[in-house]
Amino acid sequence: MTECSEASVTEAATPPVIDLNADLGEGFGRWQLTDDEALLSVVTSANVACGFHAGDPGTMRRVCELAAERGVVIGAQVSYRDLAGFGRRAMDVPPDELADEIAYQIGALEVFARAAGARVGYVKPHGALYNRCVHDAEQADAVIDGIRTAGGGLPVLGLPGSRLHEAARGAGLPVVGEAFADRAYTAEGTLVPRREAGAVIHDPDEVVKRALGMACDRTVASVDGQRVEITARSLCLHGDTPGAAELAHRVRSELGGAGVRIRSFL
Amino acid sequence: MTECSEASVTEAATPPVIDLNADLGEGFGRWQLTDDEALLSVVTSANVACGFHAGDPGTMRRVCELAAERGVVIGAQVSYRDLAGFGRRAMDVPPDELADEIAYQIGALEVFARAAGARVGYVKPHGALYNRCVHDAEQADAVIDGIRTAGGGLPVLGLPGSRLHEAARGAGLPVVGEAFADRAYTAEGTLVPRREAGAVIHDPDEVVKRALGMACDRTVASVDGQRVEITARSLCLHGDTPGAAELAHRVRSELGGAGVRIRSFL
Amino acid sequence: MTECSEASVTEAATPPVIDLNADLGEGFGRWQLTDDEALLSVVTSANVACGFHAGDPGTMRRVCELAAERGVVIGAQVSYRDLAGFGRRAMDVPPDELADEIAYQIGALEVFARAAGARVGYVKPHGALYNRCVHDAEQADAVIDGIRTAGGGLPVLGLPGSRLHEAARGAGLPVVGEAFADRAYTAEGTLVPRREAGAVIHDPDEVVKRALGMACDRTVASVDGQRVEITARSLCLHGDTPGAAELAHRVRSELGGAGVRIRSFL
Amino acid sequence: MTECSEASVTEAATPPVIDLNADLGEGFGRWQLTDDEALLSVVTSANVACGFHAGDPGTMRRVCELAAERGVVIGAQVSYRDLAGFGRRAMDVPPDELADEIAYQIGALEVFARAAGARVGYVKPHGALYNRCVHDAEQADAVIDGIRTAGGGLPVLGLPGSRLHEAARGAGLPVVGEAFADRAYTAEGTLVPRREAGAVIHDPDEVVKRALGMACDRTVASVDGQRVEITARSLCLHGDTPGAAELAHRVRSELGGAGVRIRSFL
Repeated sequence: MTECSEASVTEAATPPVIDLNADLGEGFGRWQLTDDEALLSVVTSANVACGFHAGDPGTMRRVCELAAERGVVIGAQVSYRDLAGFGRRAMDVPPDELADEIAYQIGALEVFARAAGARVGYVKPHGALYNRCVHDAEQADAVIDGIRTAGGGLPVLGLPGSRLHEAARGAGLPVVGEAFADRAYTAEGTLVPRREAGAVIHDPDEVVKRALGMACDRTVASVDGQRVEITARSLCLHGDTPGAAELAHRVRSELGGAGVRIRSFL
Repeated sequence: MTECSEASVTEAATPPVIDLNADLGEGFGRWQLTDDEALLSVVTSANVACGFHAGDPGTMRRVCELAAERGVVIGAQVSYRDLAGFGRRAMDVPPDELADEIAYQIGALEVFARAAGARVGYVKPHGALYNRCVHDAEQADAVIDGIRTAGGGLPVLGLPGSRLHEAARGAGLPVVGEAFADRAYTAEGTLVPRREAGAVIHDPDEVVKRALGMACDRTVASVDGQRVEITARSLCLHGDTPGAAELAHRVRSELGGAGVRIRSFL
Repeated sequence: MTECSEASVTEAATPPVIDLNADLGEGFGRWQLTDDEALLSVVTSANVACGFHAGDPGTMRRVCELAAERGVVIGAQVSYRDLAGFGRRAMDVPPDELADEIAYQIGALEVFARAAGARVGYVKPHGALYNRCVHDAEQADAVIDGIRTAGGGLPVLGLPGSRLHEAARGAGLPVVGEAFADRAYTAEGTLVPRREAGAVIHDPDEVVKRALGMACDRTVASVDGQRVEITARSLCLHGDTPGAAELAHRVRSELGGAGVRIRSFL
Repeated sequence: MTECSEASVTEAATPPVIDLNADLGEGFGRWQLTDDEALLSVVTSANVACGFHAGDPGTMRRVCELAAERGVVIGAQVSYRDLAGFGRRAMDVPPDELADEIAYQIGALEVFARAAGARVGYVKPHGALYNRCVHDAEQADAVIDGIRTAGGGLPVLGLPGSRLHEAARGAGLPVVGEAFADRAYTAEGTLVPRREAGAVIHDPDEVVKRALGMACDRTVASVDGQRVEITARSLCLHGDTPGAAELAHRVRSELGGAGVRIRSFL
């Protein structure tokens, strides 16, 4: 187990702190996908599906209960209305419709969060909506409008530098940046698009190593070997592939061993 | 215009008071059904569709805004998940699933009620769920469980004597009874089933007359000419048929002219 | 009533022939939209919604029965899977998924066409899919793949010069061009986008006049006064606005009075 | 491996013949459930989900292609419209709506069967609809009406003695009875309801033994030890539980080893 190097600890003056988030509750009715039980013992923030790309009411309730029991913060993982496409198909939803759909989802989740003695603590768009809000100011604004309709000044978890974060700042909402230990980065600090070779890192050792670098040194190596600064306050772990829960456990364990404090951003 | 007879006023000691409720926001996307604008100037309680049998997020927001502006109380009109059947097809939903689906709908509506500066003030089941909860204790209990999950001790608008009201009382939730001026009653005070001839009263004059009797004398004539006592605190007006909004206006006007106070039950 | 001018009749050697198409069956469950009964006495081709943006099975059956009775050709009006958005929200559906969704819809409609003693005679994409397939070769190819999966070499009704027609030709499918009497055209013969002022022509007299010009002279005046050639074999009439059925009747009547033969393209 | 006893072979004069059917294609979009690939190397009849309780168009196409390649007969596994409940919630669908929904599903599947060079060979209701059609004549009639709308005189796979089979016979449609090697039977030959203890047999050895008895001797032991006659022409294998595909393989293998011919009922 690696420890955060002395240099980084010195620079930071305090031990590095990171949040771990993952998408949870992504089943629907008879169908299950994410290993919610296992991941809720790893993450500090749970992005809970709200029924539009996944997430039936029963699953939402159970994930909220379990999250509340374990002190995991509940976030609304909002999406396009697209069960058939799992929210992975970008849609030209008119801004006012999109805003209202976002608010609807947050409200639905809030019921289960409160019933479990917690609250919805933040919002993170899912899939195609997440990707679109990186560059599309109109949809990003609509998402932020929906979050404002839902009220409570909820923080917005997303990609640093995205239009979504820009819109959130403009609306006075807190922003939280996230990084991906299993995704390749360009020298400019953006994600290598999934369609390009090497975009996703499958080697568990490499993923762990990058997670450590992101948390301790706030850097990662780009695809062309540059040192890229990482400003993320949260690391996104994936939970919908075989072995994902196990890898997530290992990342958490190694981060802890290296002296990184795993703590929600709230 | 008829006035409440002296006898009834004397008996009551104070002027009779009645709430008027109607189903609103029953469109979905491109499709509209109810004349929300017109009915919101008549009713004191709006049963707002929450997206399971009707009611897209945009419609929910607009109806809540208009209701709040006019001081109309917002209620959650919860339903089976059945857009294709408009919630009119009874479904054997397992109790725990049903409870969670009810909570989900209330939460989604609450967002728009709050954004309009109001709150969800009560719950009323829609269509087949309403009918089923008259006699089916299991589903009635599930609906009440869902309302409790949503929190806030919301009153339950429904048929006096129904299993739903029994379950609500058992859970400590307030109950509000409603009557139907356009439905025939049996001598026992139950509704004549829709499949029987004469179950629905289409003559506007007759509907107005019965509304007056229900509000002033707390009685209505049964199909076989008996005098039936009506304990309802609310009258349900229908808004989804041609001429419905006009008839609703007339009922309100004649009740007012007869000295009945039209006021929400909250 | 105007007659086709001598010149145009001479040029054409035979009386001009035109097909009239309209979108039908665009209700869903409790919600109705198009006046199917009225329009089926006007059009020669019925674009029947297949359940993805509108069109429940019962409506599909009834429209097919009525169309078959009146000798109106049944076409599959295929769409993105988007009831909430009425198929008006462009979606990035992966080509293979889109092709299969198109085939599914055609198959579902075919059952009702056959039960009515007819067949699905052609395919026309709806709404956002129609618009996207004007320029997007990938989605146009996917739609054509879906039509080929459905079999039968169905003709494709669409915009002349569109990518959809190009893809259809490449696949050996017949193409049928359509024109819009109530839409403004540029000098290049393309439609003025709806977001621009004057894109939709609301004056019934003007719509009728343009329909006559399109059918008789095969021309229409562009927004900047140029004479634009129209190669369409079909005119699209709209049926989802108040007064639409009446205007459609008038267009048909005036075309007939001018000596234009109203006949399906099959 | 047991062989069919001499007695049974003598009685039958020819080797016993049985069809094996299983529910396939029960995923939806991102979610998978059944191991279609494995089961298609076991069964002779594939009950393919048609999109109402499960079964997206892409899955339907792939299952049809694979079934056609392996000579497995394709059946339409029709259901209530209930993705959230996986078709397991009984619904009071009005008969005419139900009939049209059945026809719609068959038509959609037929497209993919034909594209694979095959045809839909039979119909089997799924889940709650299957159970309801055992006793409910109205819904059974509606299902049969839907099958007739779809045309082709399709055989109806179901429980011997059910209302569904009665309705099918009345309509002149062939019926095929099925038995369940993993379900307990009463002395009257009906299934022990799932809610009762011992209703489902989990011991693989016992399931294999019962399958052999059903195919060879046409009998099974009831819960109270009686010998019950089994008239089924098909055995239903389950594919949606862990180990299901393996057990199905074993059943097929042991039946083959005992001299039973595994062959579709078509």
